[in-house]
Amino acid sequence: MKKKLTLGLVGFGCVGQGLYRVLTETQGLETEIRKICIKHPEKSRSLPTAYFTTQREELLGDPEIDVIVELIDDADTAWEIVQQALQRGKAVVTANKKMVATHLDELRVLETKYGRPVLYEGAVCGSIPIIRNLEEYYDNDRINRLEGIVNGSTNYILTKVSEEGKSYAEALGEAQVNGFAESDPTLDVEGYDPTFKLSILLTHAFGLRVRPEELIRVGIHRLSAADLSFAKANHLRIRLVAGAYRHGDKLIALVAPRFVPDTHALYSVRNEFNAVSVEGLFAEEQLFVGKGAGGNPTGSAVLSDISALRYDYRYEYRKTTQESRPEYSLDATVEVVVSCAPSVRISPEDFVRFKGGERNRETHRLQGEVTLSTLADWSRRDDISIILAPGAIPKPVEVPKQEELAAA
Amino acid sequence: MKKKLTLGLVGFGCVGQGLYRVLTETQGLETEIRKICIKHPEKSRSLPTAYFTTQREELLGDPEIDVIVELIDDADTAWEIVQQALQRGKAVVTANKKMVATHLDELRVLETKYGRPVLYEGAVCGSIPIIRNLEEYYDNDRINRLEGIVNGSTNYILTKVSEEGKSYAEALGEAQVNGFAESDPTLDVEGYDPTFKLSILLTHAFGLRVRPEELIRVGIHRLSAADLSFAKANHLRIRLVAGAYRHGDKLIALVAPRFVPDTHALYSVRNEFNAVSVEGLFAEEQLFVGKGAGGNPTGSAVLSDISALRYDYRYEYRKTTQESRPEYSLDATVEVVVSCAPSVRISPEDFVRFKGGERNRETHRLQGEVTLSTLADWSRRDDISIILAPGAIPKPVEVPKQEELAAA
Repeated sequence: MKKKLTLGLVGFGCVGQGLYRVLTETQGLETEIRKICIKHPEKSRSLPTAYFTTQREELLGDPEIDVIVELIDDADTAWEIVQQALQRGKAVVTANKKMVATHLDELRVLETKYGRPVLYEGAVCGSIPIIRNLEEYYDNDRINRLEGIVNGSTNYILTKVSEEGKSYAEALGEAQVNGFAESDPTLDVEGYDPTFKLSILLTHAFGLRVRPEELIRVGIHRLSAADLSFAKANHLRIRLVAGAYRHGDKLIALVAPRFVPDTHALYSVRNEFNAVSVEGLFAEEQLFVGKGAGGNPTGSAVLSDISALRYDYRYEYRKTTQESRPEYSLDATVEVVVSCAPSVRISPEDFVRFKGGERNRETHRLQGEVTLSTLADWSRRDDISIILAPGAIPKPVEVPKQEELAAA
Repeated sequence: MKKKLTLGLVGFGCVGQGLYRVLTETQGLETEIRKICIKHPEKSRSLPTAYFTTQREELLGDPEIDVIVELIDDADTAWEIVQQALQRGKAVVTANKKMVATHLDELRVLETKYGRPVLYEGAVCGSIPIIRNLEEYYDNDRINRLEGIVNGSTNYILTKVSEEGKSYAEALGEAQVNGFAESDPTLDVEGYDPTFKLSILLTHAFGLRVRPEELIRVGIHRLSAADLSFAKANHLRIRLVAGAYRHGDKLIALVAPRFVPDTHALYSVRNEFNAVSVEGLFAEEQLFVGKGAGGNPTGSAVLSDISALRYDYRYEYRKTTQESRPEYSLDATVEVVVSCAPSVRISPEDFVRFKGGERNRETHRLQGEVTLSTLADWSRRDDISIILAPGAIPKPVEVPKQEELAAA
C-alpha cells in the first residue's frame, strides 16, 4: 500500500530547507529528493551542487520523479509549474496560498483530467493540519462558524502593540527583523494574505468557491493609538481575523481586525502563532493552534502531504457536492468601532444602527452596525481605522416579507 | 470508493443518541442504523420499538450489518462484544477508553487476524480528532512532549474551585448536576480515566504500549485550600494533566495535577473542555482544543470514524514500528509542591533536591524534586496533596558513568 516516492523540489528557500531537514531527520518515510530547481545558482547552498538545477525541465522531464513539490514565492511561475507537472502525470504538493486561492477551479479540473492529486496543507496556517481536518473530520458536520488567525506576522505585530505597548512601526520593524514579516509587508498588513487563506478554507469548510478579491478585506495598517487605548480600557485584544459565519443558507465571510474579549478562543493566541476556531453543529467549538510560518512548521505540513500521497490520498472536496451548502452573501451588516480624527467626515447616519460615539480633541470614535458595502468603502479610506466590535457577528440583512413590503 | 454502511449500535445512552442525531441530521453520509442493542427495554426511547433489541446476536448475526458501533459503559461486556464482532467479520467503532486501553494488544491481533478495523476516536478527548492527527499528521514528526487535559469533569471542577472560589465539594456537586461527572466520581477525580486515555495516546504518539496501571497517577481529590491560595498568590491555575515527555530514548509519562502559569498552553482551557498540546521536533508546538464529552461532540467523533470506514481507513500504528521509538521509563524525577497538615511526617530528606518549605499553623508546604517512586508512594497517602510545580518537566535520573562510579 505504501509507495516509495521520488521528489522534485522547486524552490529551496526557508520552507524547502525546512522540508529537507524534516525529511532527512525523520525515519520511516521512504522518500528521496531527486533534484531541486532553483533560481539563483550563485547562492551558496547547504547541499552538494549535484542536487541543483536551474532548468525545471530536468524535474518535469524525469520519469522517475513522482511528485513535484512547489515551494516558490511567485504565484504565476508556481501556477505554470503546477500545470506542467500535472500534465506530465506528476502529483503536486504546494504551499503557495495565492496560487491555490487564485486557481483552485482550474486545479481541480486538471486534477481530474490528469488523474494526479494536488495537496496544499502548507498553504494555510503552516503547521496546523486544518485542511485535512476540515476534509476528514468535518465532512459530516455542519460548520456554522470558522474564525482564524491565519497570518503570523500581523499577529506578531498586534501582540507587540497591544500587549507590550510598542508602536505599530516598531512592532512591524521587529517582525521584519525576526523574519515573520516580508520586506514589503503590504500583503500581510493590508489583509491580502488572509484573503487567500480564507478563500481556500471556504471551499473545504463550506463547499463554496469565493475568490480572494470577492472577500471584504480590512487591514491593520491604520491602527491608531486610540484603538489601543480603547482595547486596554476594555480588557480587549486586537486580532486580525479571517471569519466565516453561516446563517441558514447564507454565508458571510470577511477579513478584518476585531476586538476580542478574554472569553474568545483567539484571545490567547499570541505572537507568530496561527489558530483556527471552528464551530460545528455537533462537534461544537474546536480550536487548532500552531506555528503559522517558518521553515520547520511549514515543512512538516508539506511533509504530511507527501506522506499522504504514499497512500494515494487526495482531497475529496466533499462539502462542494452537498446539497445543503450555503450561498456566499455580501448583503449583511456587522458592528464596528471606527476611529478617526475629529475633522474626518463620518456621521451616525452612515450606520445602519448607530450605538454611540465619543469625541475628544484627538479622536472621534463611533460604534454601530454598518453594511458590508459601507465597510468595503471605508476600508479603502486612509483617514479612518475600522475594527469589528467585541462579539460582533456579521448578520444577513433581513429581506422584508411581502406583507411588510405591501404595508410600507 | 465510498461504501454504504449498515450499522448495529450497542448502547443508546448519551453518545448513542448523539450519534443518532448527528447521523440523521447531516447529509451526504449513506449510512443506516439497522438495529440498536440495549440493556433496559423498559426505558422510554426516542425511536420506534422496532429499532431495539436486547439480544446482541440480532446484530452480530445479521450479515447485512457491516459495522458494530459499541457505546456502552461496561468495559468487560464491551470487550466481549468487540471480539465477537471482529470474529464475525464486522468492523468496530468504539468510544470505550477503558476497554481500548486494557485490550489494545489483543485488539490489534484480532484486527489483523480477521481483517476488520477497529477505530476509537471517540474514546479520547471527545470531539478532538487527536488520534487521527497523531496517526496521519505526526507520523513523520518526532514528538518530544504531549500534554493533555483529557477529562472534562475534573477540568470543570478545577475551573470552578480555582477561578470561582468554590469549594471542591461544591464544584464536584455542580459537575454532577450538569452531567459532567459520574455519580461515582472516583474514576475521574482519582485520575483513572486519564490513565486510560494517556495509555492510548502513548501508542499513537510514541509507538509505546504502556498499560494504564503502569502509569503514575495522582488525583485531584486531596486538593487543599492551601493549594488554591498558593495558585492564587502566584497567578497560577491548576490543571489535571496527562503528560508524556521524551528525553532522548526515554519516555516519561504520568497523570497528575500541575500548576500552570498563563504562558502554558493549557492555562486557558476551562470548564468541560479538553485539550492536547503536542510539541513536535518540526511542527513545534500545536494545541487542539474541543469539547471532551457530551452526546453531540463524542457522537461526531464516532461519526468521523464511521465515515472513515467508508474509505477503508484503519490505524496504521506507524510509530510502533519505528526504530527510533523511545523506551518507557519510571526512573525519573519531577518537581512537586506538596502540602499537608503541619503534623504530617514529611521532610526535606524525602526529596532528591529540596527547594524550600513554608509552615504556618494550618499547613506545611514543601517544594522540590522527587523520584517517581516517591511520587507513587505519596499519591496513595490520604494526608498529603501533591501538585507538579509550575514548569515542572519530569526528567530521567542520570545514570552515573563508569568512571564516576569507580571514583565514588
